[in-house]
Amino acid sequence: MSMRQYTPVNFADVRIEGAFWHERLETVLTKTIPSQYRQLGENGILESLELKKPTPPLRIPRNSHNFTTQIFWDSDVGKWIEAASYALRHRRDATIEAQIDGITALFAKGQLPDGYMNFWYLAQEPDKRWTNLRDNHELYCAGHILEGAVAYYQATGKRALLDVLLKYVDHIATVFGPGENQKHGYCGHQEIELALIKLYGVTKDRKHLDLATYFINERGKLPHYFDLEAIARGDNPKDYWAIPQADPAGRSGYEYNQSHKPVRQQDRVVGHAVRAMYMYTAMADLAAELGDDTLKKTLEVLWKDVTSRQMYVTAGLGPSKHNEGFTTYYDLPNDTAYAETCASVALIFWAQRMLNIDLDGRYADVLEQALYNGALSGLSRDGEHYFYENPLDSDGKHTRWKWHTCPCCTMNVSRLVASVAGYFYSTSADSLAVHLYGGSSATVKVGERSVSIKETSNYPWSGKIKIAIDPEKSGEFTLKLRIPGWVHDASARINGAGIDLAEAIANGYLEIRRMWSKGDVVDLDLPMPVERLYAHPSVKADVGRAVLKRGPLVYCAEQVDNPGVPVSQIRLPRNAKVAAQERKDLFGGIMAITAEGTTTTAEDWNGNLYRSEPPHEKPARWTAVPYYLWNNREPGRMLVWIPEL
Amino acid sequence: MSMRQYTPVNFADVRIEGAFWHERLETVLTKTIPSQYRQLGENGILESLELKKPTPPLRIPRNSHNFTTQIFWDSDVGKWIEAASYALRHRRDATIEAQIDGITALFAKGQLPDGYMNFWYLAQEPDKRWTNLRDNHELYCAGHILEGAVAYYQATGKRALLDVLLKYVDHIATVFGPGENQKHGYCGHQEIELALIKLYGVTKDRKHLDLATYFINERGKLPHYFDLEAIARGDNPKDYWAIPQADPAGRSGYEYNQSHKPVRQQDRVVGHAVRAMYMYTAMADLAAELGDDTLKKTLEVLWKDVTSRQMYVTAGLGPSKHNEGFTTYYDLPNDTAYAETCASVALIFWAQRMLNIDLDGRYADVLEQALYNGALSGLSRDGEHYFYENPLDSDGKHTRWKWHTCPCCTMNVSRLVASVAGYFYSTSADSLAVHLYGGSSATVKVGERSVSIKETSNYPWSGKIKIAIDPEKSGEFTLKLRIPGWVHDASARINGAGIDLAEAIANGYLEIRRMWSKGDVVDLDLPMPVERLYAHPSVKADVGRAVLKRGPLVYCAEQVDNPGVPVSQIRLPRNAKVAAQERKDLFGGIMAITAEGTTTTAEDWNGNLYRSEPPHEKPARWTAVPYYLWNNREPGRMLVWIPEL
Repeated sequence: MSMRQYTPVNFADVRIEGAFWHERLETVLTKTIPSQYRQLGENGILESLELKKPTPPLRIPRNSHNFTTQIFWDSDVGKWIEAASYALRHRRDATIEAQIDGITALFAKGQLPDGYMNFWYLAQEPDKRWTNLRDNHELYCAGHILEGAVAYYQATGKRALLDVLLKYVDHIATVFGPGENQKHGYCGHQEIELALIKLYGVTKDRKHLDLATYFINERGKLPHYFDLEAIARGDNPKDYWAIPQADPAGRSGYEYNQSHKPVRQQDRVVGHAVRAMYMYTAMADLAAELGDDTLKKTLEVLWKDVTSRQMYVTAGLGPSKHNEGFTTYYDLPNDTAYAETCASVALIFWAQRMLNIDLDGRYADVLEQALYNGALSGLSRDGEHYFYENPLDSDGKHTRWKWHTCPCCTMNVSRLVASVAGYFYSTSADSLAVHLYGGSSATVKVGERSVSIKETSNYPWSGKIKIAIDPEKSGEFTLKLRIPGWVHDASARINGAGIDLAEAIANGYLEIRRMWSKGDVVDLDLPMPVERLYAHPSVKADVGRAVLKRGPLVYCAEQVDNPGVPVSQIRLPRNAKVAAQERKDLFGGIMAITAEGTTTTAEDWNGNLYRSEPPHEKPARWTAVPYYLWNNREPGRMLVWIPEL
Repeated sequence: MSMRQYTPVNFADVRIEGAFWHERLETVLTKTIPSQYRQLGENGILESLELKKPTPPLRIPRNSHNFTTQIFWDSDVGKWIEAASYALRHRRDATIEAQIDGITALFAKGQLPDGYMNFWYLAQEPDKRWTNLRDNHELYCAGHILEGAVAYYQATGKRALLDVLLKYVDHIATVFGPGENQKHGYCGHQEIELALIKLYGVTKDRKHLDLATYFINERGKLPHYFDLEAIARGDNPKDYWAIPQADPAGRSGYEYNQSHKPVRQQDRVVGHAVRAMYMYTAMADLAAELGDDTLKKTLEVLWKDVTSRQMYVTAGLGPSKHNEGFTTYYDLPNDTAYAETCASVALIFWAQRMLNIDLDGRYADVLEQALYNGALSGLSRDGEHYFYENPLDSDGKHTRWKWHTCPCCTMNVSRLVASVAGYFYSTSADSLAVHLYGGSSATVKVGERSVSIKETSNYPWSGKIKIAIDPEKSGEFTLKLRIPGWVHDASARINGAGIDLAEAIANGYLEIRRMWSKGDVVDLDLPMPVERLYAHPSVKADVGRAVLKRGPLVYCAEQVDNPGVPVSQIRLPRNAKVAAQERKDLFGGIMAITAEGTTTTAEDWNGNLYRSEPPHEKPARWTAVPYYLWNNREPGRMLVWIPEL
């Protein structure tokens, strides 16, 4: 009864061979994941699992919600386990396994006999568990550890960690549910839902899917659980809306955590961006698993809402730092953009679910846009520095950090990159769909048929793509090759013979149905001219400005590439020539963009701040690099949206 | 030994006769000042002077500085007395005098035998007076009451209030000073300094000038008084820089209150804008009184700094709400502009001082720019609503309020308008200078000679100005008429005969030295075409945009004038025609601006947020009104800087 048309090919079954992702993957495996374990240790996060007596004092002050960032720590451990487990599927590593096994032992030791296991509450307020779902992230933490446990089980077959989590989930299922003595609650930060669905994928135990469904269906019902829970604590529920996290658009409901209405009544993307994306991911999973068309239709409305009015050109989400989320339509300021790395990562999760329900290139386009821009920008070249926020304009003060009191983004980007191969392919009973390019190979099942596929390209630097198909034995099926929305003049040949693409493209995929035999080769050409993009005129921040892009990559001008030309004063006249330029000297070889543009002159202003004559322009050649690479050399000004005049 | 070249003609000696200022003045006298007294009553501010036992509980929570807005309340009373006293000089009013006499009685009753008189400390923490000059505004409050007392004495000749304040000042002079047992401190919010200089103008008692000088000279010396004071309280001085008021530019010193260096070493305008302007005003007074060239030179550097890099086109000051003040050079965002009304009012104070030291039109230009734009915008048409912040771009959510928990701006704008005539004229031994136009008359002393002057015009709506000079007896002196910096083709005639302006203009003033006789008339023509202004290319927020202005007025497009044309989407092509248009239907008659511009079309975007084609434009005639009038009809979008493309 699933309405999922396609099944993604697991990343563990796909080999990344192309230069672009190979470099990122190796960096994550060799640098990022080990360094993240060190950071978990150095920052006291691993130690917190030891529940040492006496209880360690709070080193981090409580905020207006009466919690500390330590309340998230379990989730950071869980996300690291997940990322590290993905690494193990690339190559087993005794050190990593010993680290995870060590954590597992601490989990088992700390877990209460009834299965409860949240280390902040165990250490600080053991008598207050499950009293503040709205703020205190217990189920969120459980969800991330659960995702880690599932990943570790899948990577190693070891059950110990999974068993700890199964016991915890059983406990959760006794506490929450429709029963008279159960809490009719759900987490203020969605996450457990999608984790339970992953667990269901392993256990096939319907109760895990049911619990996820319960949390989603209960959300936003009246009387509101967060009201009841606050009253039970002796708090005034209305106090919630006085805090800085209150919705910046002033809607003052539970928009912040998307519990302002039952989920099927929601038609606008609001509140905290990561919460929203995690929830939609779970909803899409449930729509697929349950064949729930009401959920699917809701998600289609929300997808259109966010992608057509509330998304940065980098696929960054959430302009405001106040709620780490959404404000009003078309409010997309560049210099103060929050655009949390986690939100773009989570958008990729959601897009992938939508894509496998309906194979529609619009979902893959956004997935790719987030992957190459707003998500990838979160990880430094060296693999050990991060961005939490991803602004599109910087005065040079924005720098990458080595660690963060709220390190959520670090492991979100490492688990994404470690499993990036899982976004390349999907299969159905008689189709093999290719979503992403860049050099990869896999042997997949198309129905009962085993098919090897090898995609060779230098994507995203080049759009010349070669796909070799090698079925176990010749047979008929459909190969579906994504033609990105940004391509204008794609062409393709099969075994050297041209294909009429106008006829063959449906929903953004080139469909080639034929008898496939060993040695068949498709050549796909996705031309990548340098292009300008413009924003909808309601986006105030981008009026009179254009973005330079090439292929899936958004470019930015960084000061370090433009000595003598202040990036804040570069201009891109409408008729300025722009060209891609291979730069072997940068980051191991990239395509940069050179613009024969201008720069405004400040010399003739004579100390005036305003004058009746417009600024003068003089010719200036300037260079732009892919946005995801910015801030990897030296701090400096950066600009994505270039004034056109 | 004064270096003040010119003495301003007191507002009480100037009659406002022109329509523009007559309307504002009458509104302030009949509406604003009475309503402000009512508000002081309704908001508990007058009641706080009664020191009722038991001490009233704090109705307003303490902030991170451990103070409440009530700590400012004395200053609000003082500023209202000052504004109301200015009203009395226009026409005596028994009701107002009874109100001020009633307040005087409360002051006298509350004042301690030693002269101390701060009602917050008296009510809340009488044992802690003078322990937190950095944050708690005691001297600031004293300064504002002192300004009120001086004004009331000048208006009525009644001494009771002045005597209370003289006793308080005597007390302050025992507490603060260079003596071994005195505190070597000064106020975190400058104000007392300029008030003491005003007091000196009345008493001619050198000790009042000396105390002001002491406060200015002591500021910023090391060891830093605010450090010592914090340690004495048991606080860590460094905690100060963790608060939101810390300098947004990250300089993390005492920039917020301009005590990061001794004042003569300061060369950059930083920190809280009102504090800065009040301090510079006092410094300019001292420079003039003492003939202190080091102070004057410092002020010239600071003047250039703020006007050439840190001032909105409305003469609004301070882009950031975090410190209510300055950030980095050229950081002038429009939608989040703080640009507090008080700061523009205080800039007028400073500009007037500078102008009377050196008669230089640059000072008068900024004075006029602030007066007609950033300051006047703070007061509604009905005289009973206010702006605290004055953004240059609004999505329609910014509305005027009737009162504010921190009502500083209300009385700053009423005292300014009630005394606006004081900015029109200055005299020296043999010169009469006219700074502002708009219909006024006065009889002044030029040296020993009594001269009547009558200026007739419909300024700022028209630049056609007639000045009739009527000396008591004929004699030679110089008439100096300001030629605003925004004028390109001024012309003038004396008794019908043309004057060669190129020869006769010096430092922005047309100088006419001759034998003046009864009946002499100067006709001055200051053409007021509609013009575009552009910002320095480093002002990121204004790139590709222009401001429409005419004469001294900056214009804005308000949604209410443009039905069917969304203000957020209007554009002003470089070649678009713009014209002034008389609008008798608006605000009793104004000059509006009509632009034959364009508007971008959103209809053809088909739900896309980004696309490779620029937005399309279609012709649209739209209307702009003077900025100071915005938000007097209905809430709606407003835009000052119009995109040019």
